[in-house]
Amino acid sequence: MTHPTPALARSRAELTSLLADARRDGARVAYVPTMGALHEGHASLVREARAQVGDAGRVVVSIFVNPLQFAPGEDLDRYPRTLDADLEICAAEGVDVVFAPDADEVYPGGVRAGETDETVTVDPGPLAAELEGVSRPTHFRGVLTVVAKLFGLVRPDVAVFGQKDYQQLVLVRQMAENLCTGVEVVGAETVREPDGLALSSRNRYLDPEQRRRAAMLSQTLRAAQEAARYGLDVAVEAARAELRQAHGVDLDYLEFRRPDLSPLPAEITEETEARVLIAARLGTTRLIDNLPLVLGVPRHLARAAASAATEGDS
Amino acid sequence: MTHPTPALARSRAELTSLLADARRDGARVAYVPTMGALHEGHASLVREARAQVGDAGRVVVSIFVNPLQFAPGEDLDRYPRTLDADLEICAAEGVDVVFAPDADEVYPGGVRAGETDETVTVDPGPLAAELEGVSRPTHFRGVLTVVAKLFGLVRPDVAVFGQKDYQQLVLVRQMAENLCTGVEVVGAETVREPDGLALSSRNRYLDPEQRRRAAMLSQTLRAAQEAARYGLDVAVEAARAELRQAHGVDLDYLEFRRPDLSPLPAEITEETEARVLIAARLGTTRLIDNLPLVLGVPRHLARAAASAATEGDS
Repeated sequence: MTHPTPALARSRAELTSLLADARRDGARVAYVPTMGALHEGHASLVREARAQVGDAGRVVVSIFVNPLQFAPGEDLDRYPRTLDADLEICAAEGVDVVFAPDADEVYPGGVRAGETDETVTVDPGPLAAELEGVSRPTHFRGVLTVVAKLFGLVRPDVAVFGQKDYQQLVLVRQMAENLCTGVEVVGAETVREPDGLALSSRNRYLDPEQRRRAAMLSQTLRAAQEAARYGLDVAVEAARAELRQAHGVDLDYLEFRRPDLSPLPAEITEETEARVLIAARLGTTRLIDNLPLVLGVPRHLARAAASAATEGDS
Repeated sequence: MTHPTPALARSRAELTSLLADARRDGARVAYVPTMGALHEGHASLVREARAQVGDAGRVVVSIFVNPLQFAPGEDLDRYPRTLDADLEICAAEGVDVVFAPDADEVYPGGVRAGETDETVTVDPGPLAAELEGVSRPTHFRGVLTVVAKLFGLVRPDVAVFGQKDYQQLVLVRQMAENLCTGVEVVGAETVREPDGLALSSRNRYLDPEQRRRAAMLSQTLRAAQEAARYGLDVAVEAARAELRQAHGVDLDYLEFRRPDLSPLPAEITEETEARVLIAARLGTTRLIDNLPLVLGVPRHLARAAASAATEGDS
């Protein structure tokens, strides 16, 4: 099976011209922003984008390694760049337009790791200092600033982000709403290896032993997810039991939050949707993952509630 | 002469529907954001907007008193609201669409003076702490956040701002560029009363005596502008001489800057475009104004340069 090669835009002007007929026809545009080094996870985002706009719509993928979201000393320089392979994946997935701008096109004022000479940026608010933000305090300002820029350049109707970077998804959704971008932000499910490891462009940094051990992240989340029906304490203990068996893994955080990443209530008195999130280092490689779960009411509280109801009946 | 009444949109959905044919036809949209209480200064912005897009284009005026750009204790509550008169002015100027949203439409997450419950805002960068920012430290975050929102709602090709609020114009232009909004920001010349007072919705706060004294702002700027050819020191002295004659006027600042509001070079060695900006209080009313000027080379430097050139010739 052969696929038409997607059109490649290197500048805003080229992108605008490639999408001119879509704008004129009122065709919907779905957008998948990436940093390249595409894998099956990105391919699934593209399929979700196509499902959002149908065959009459346009699917745009951007490939841009954003210096502003890396801190100095992080892996900006060694982050994998694989444009030819990326274009093949985009062709196979029926992408209409690949937007692969130079840094000058996105930051005409200049940009380096974690820093821009441009003056106006997007302030992501307090959530950006939590979870990932504890070890990467400038990361989400960089992410939201570049996503705002890319939304401005691409002007999509809908944008698809992976749930693997869950905090990013929540913050991008807040930004899209708070700045009235008119972009609907869709979260797509995480694609996993057979042993549960979430696909990530950074997985290729792992040596074979680290790769084997990396399955521990999703195993820990899965254990928490399964134990969650017995209440938060049981879920936490189940996750900790997994973590005690892990070797060569340096845990950064394991946290249970509401789906919007606000704190859970102090006491769970009814079935509560939640998210469990993990970050850990294997050698110099930092991996993150997360899963949804439903927290049940702990047995002693359920029992107390039931006996209170019985007393009320008598 | 009668004018067709502009269409009035109260929500994003109404606005989108009123502009649907313009989008389909590829008609250009010019946008004038205002806080209402319209006067001849706004009318001139509307005429500039029409000139930008021609008869085939659409001119949109928004009327929205943005709570976020007021600090608690500033004049949010007493800021004049004159919707019926505003609509008449818009009709007379041939505005196509007036967008007058409620606060809920622009800030679904909630907003009060100087504060929003929404989490993502626009960070205006260091210039926002200077000039107006000294006495109004949160003002420009509020301005740029609402302008980003309004640009997202209106999606104009070009937006017209008055030069009277010069620092706002510079910051909005930076925002439009840095966030890749694709909106061209045009600055329109300040409209003045016969005695030179710049038109402002806040002028109606002035009592007759304050109104008379208020002419001093533009007289001070004009003196600086005329003296500028003799160098910066002379321009400063000319402005100070005007200020010494002023009564009942509490000067906040008088500053000379480059046109982009960065500092002037320490020594002016060639003709240099600049801006002189003033802010002052008359009673409880705070007024601002500014003018462009061209700084000449001071005589002693010009003389030194000339004699150096002569020596070089010999």
